[in-house]
Amino acid sequence: MTANHELQFTPEGKLKHFLSIEGLSKSLLTEILDTAESFASVSDQQVKKFPLLRGKTIINLFFENSTRTRTTFDLAATRLSADVLNMDISTSATSKGETLLDTIRNLEAMHVDMFVVRHSISGAAHFIARHVAPYISVINAGDGNHAHPTQAMLDMFTIRRVKQDFSQLRVAIVGDILHSRVARSQIQALNTLGVPEIHVIAPKTLLPAKVETLGVKVFNDMEKGIQEADVVIMLRLQKERMTGAFLPTESEYYKCYGLTQDKLKSAKPDAIVMHPGPINRGVEIASSVADGMSSVILKQVSYGIAVRMAIMSMTMQAAGTQ
Amino acid sequence: MTANHELQFTPEGKLKHFLSIEGLSKSLLTEILDTAESFASVSDQQVKKFPLLRGKTIINLFFENSTRTRTTFDLAATRLSADVLNMDISTSATSKGETLLDTIRNLEAMHVDMFVVRHSISGAAHFIARHVAPYISVINAGDGNHAHPTQAMLDMFTIRRVKQDFSQLRVAIVGDILHSRVARSQIQALNTLGVPEIHVIAPKTLLPAKVETLGVKVFNDMEKGIQEADVVIMLRLQKERMTGAFLPTESEYYKCYGLTQDKLKSAKPDAIVMHPGPINRGVEIASSVADGMSSVILKQVSYGIAVRMAIMSMTMQAAGTQ
Amino acid sequence: MTANHELQFTPEGKLKHFLSIEGLSKSLLTEILDTAESFASVSDQQVKKFPLLRGKTIINLFFENSTRTRTTFDLAATRLSADVLNMDISTSATSKGETLLDTIRNLEAMHVDMFVVRHSISGAAHFIARHVAPYISVINAGDGNHAHPTQAMLDMFTIRRVKQDFSQLRVAIVGDILHSRVARSQIQALNTLGVPEIHVIAPKTLLPAKVETLGVKVFNDMEKGIQEADVVIMLRLQKERMTGAFLPTESEYYKCYGLTQDKLKSAKPDAIVMHPGPINRGVEIASSVADGMSSVILKQVSYGIAVRMAIMSMTMQAAGTQ
Repeated sequence: MTANHELQFTPEGKLKHFLSIEGLSKSLLTEILDTAESFASVSDQQVKKFPLLRGKTIINLFFENSTRTRTTFDLAATRLSADVLNMDISTSATSKGETLLDTIRNLEAMHVDMFVVRHSISGAAHFIARHVAPYISVINAGDGNHAHPTQAMLDMFTIRRVKQDFSQLRVAIVGDILHSRVARSQIQALNTLGVPEIHVIAPKTLLPAKVETLGVKVFNDMEKGIQEADVVIMLRLQKERMTGAFLPTESEYYKCYGLTQDKLKSAKPDAIVMHPGPINRGVEIASSVADGMSSVILKQVSYGIAVRMAIMSMTMQAAGTQ
Repeated sequence: MTANHELQFTPEGKLKHFLSIEGLSKSLLTEILDTAESFASVSDQQVKKFPLLRGKTIINLFFENSTRTRTTFDLAATRLSADVLNMDISTSATSKGETLLDTIRNLEAMHVDMFVVRHSISGAAHFIARHVAPYISVINAGDGNHAHPTQAMLDMFTIRRVKQDFSQLRVAIVGDILHSRVARSQIQALNTLGVPEIHVIAPKTLLPAKVETLGVKVFNDMEKGIQEADVVIMLRLQKERMTGAFLPTESEYYKCYGLTQDKLKSAKPDAIVMHPGPINRGVEIASSVADGMSSVILKQVSYGIAVRMAIMSMTMQAAGTQ
Repeated sequence: MTANHELQFTPEGKLKHFLSIEGLSKSLLTEILDTAESFASVSDQQVKKFPLLRGKTIINLFFENSTRTRTTFDLAATRLSADVLNMDISTSATSKGETLLDTIRNLEAMHVDMFVVRHSISGAAHFIARHVAPYISVINAGDGNHAHPTQAMLDMFTIRRVKQDFSQLRVAIVGDILHSRVARSQIQALNTLGVPEIHVIAPKTLLPAKVETLGVKVFNDMEKGIQEADVVIMLRLQKERMTGAFLPTESEYYKCYGLTQDKLKSAKPDAIVMHPGPINRGVEIASSVADGMSSVILKQVSYGIAVRMAIMSMTMQAAGTQ
């Protein structure tokens, strides 16, 4: 069986699926960022359309609901002139007892060109990529606790736009590292792009075992962790975690790990604050920080379209050569 | 804070948002009707597309379900070549605890060009218009009991198409005036366009306090109220009102305020009958009237597309100059 | 009142609605298959778009949920460049008490060009076709137990692609004939296209009364029924039937009527196996057969798009001449 990180490429080494940051080279990540740069100004044009994917059919296969992520993929595909079909899987044939693979085989037979997959099970996008016809691209839009690579790439794009160079940065990631597919993908991307210092900050109950082996420094104290940081990335707190043994009360969490103006003073004066959204105001971040001068949270959303356009057009081009 | 009726205009006085009939001039309403006239014949063409909004992204932001209204906005936008994205807000990020303003800010960051907003709270569309970026237009597709201005404009278009001149008309509006955003917007439009006699007809429990100050004559007796009317507008009876103290039984309501062939004889022989739909046959209107010669109910639906195309293209053009 | 089979034609004899195979001539069915042939290669092209229905509005009016069928109609319409609007009828105005006819009249007033109708009641598509404006086409996408004519046509297309000639074939249809709208339409199409031997195979409880009058031979024993068959069509077993008196247990059904490699040996060596999907593995068909060399199940899905493109473009052209 092909290793996971080889699965993403054509025999000629072109990126055909985008499933995980793992196994992607620095030069490939840079190529994605450069391609996204060419789309980033598109949204300001009078007419926001590129004909690159005209006549292509893209299926948003969302087994897990996410209006925001689906909307950005929908807009990215539409602005590339593709035809987009949103499939709400809870109402689909799988509820008639069809297997996932049968669903995929059937959509494949309808000559679709790309699946954008979101699933609550880690590895779902890889599984689909492993089984689709060679001319089809698969984009992972989030799988379980595993990866959310397009989110990580739009974060990298945002950092590069402001800070230009990755090689001198200290980046702090704060929050539920244990359950966060976003954090996993961010750490891989930051390491690959040459960020020398990555801090992860969380209570012990929200840290994966042996997290240091990912190439990060671990902090339980927030102010120490974000000290002199150039970039502070806040993670969304899944409120459903509060019921378990993972967390104290919401207000206690906010006291220790919520990003306030006061705590932010530990970071560099020109530090930027990021968050994948949707934000919980007063839980992981103070409104004054989320809406403040350091925040680039809405820029992340904007750049998300350009980055997804880049990944979609690159993978489709690679698939088309097979 | 900008007054509500100023909010709709660019500094140069162009219509940028369409939120309410209030504060709009007779010449502006006439300009909308004239622009709609140029679209009204489109639907009969072989190819029903105008390239006016090509490359524009329109979000149907429906916090309140309405297939009919959403469908007409969807078709209007599609026929102007815009890209349309329907957002079912009950399944969106707001259910993850995000505030309305955060939802708007995020969609804005995706570089959308227009929000078509339907909401059960009066003032929701104004609130959004007050907070969006200057290049974005907001159309009110119905907010609480407050306004439904595109419905009122398609009603005016329908009246003008049949009766040509507003200055000699007697228009009767029958039904639940108290809770009707449609009636509110209609009364404002009829007054602005110079209709000399507007009658409102309802039981006392379904009339707003001091309704006379709106520039209407009030009747509790239907036959007196529609006497010699040129136009009879029936309102939809929200059946959920029946449970409160507002109304007697459904059949008693029909007996007093349902439009039958017999009652219609009080109006002028060439009177037209209108209804915003969906109709409750045998509750507020007899089937023989709804389907009869005087009814222009389905024409209202047709013209609704042309009127919405006019408003969408006018506001987008104004927003584009900012 | 026009007879059902005359309803489908314009006065000039052109196919305007596609409601049932009944009443359609061999030459018309052949014309559909030939037209579909011209679309069948489209999906392999770089750009999969035909401008034939540009500017046309098609409403997928699905009163009964079916992601798969709706998706193929959606893709077919999109590849013909039409604008498609999917209406989930459970959330629409009908839930506000509007009648089906009022819903249709309203959509008609919005100048739509085609309704693709799926409904749990037999005759629903005919009813709509009988009442729409002359320029509108209606396609039956499945009505109750009555007909599923586009499915039957894609089955015919699949058979012709592999077997070329209908005039020498033995076709066996296995399963719940009693409740299957697919089987009804298939039998009519096979008879019309001149298939000399049609076998239906089912337990007595799943056979309609006087099924022989449809022009088929009846078998209760599967191996006898599929003997020397060129084509074996398996029907989907509606699991909800299992609760009634119609069927023994699932495993007993599989033992008698499930298509296994072993049973398939009774058919000709080059027999093809078909299924309308979604399949119940291990209930009506073994996985080894569904995924085996004889199976053309996924080809049916592919051809379904081409056949629907053919029917949509033919009916729309006929409606346009009225």
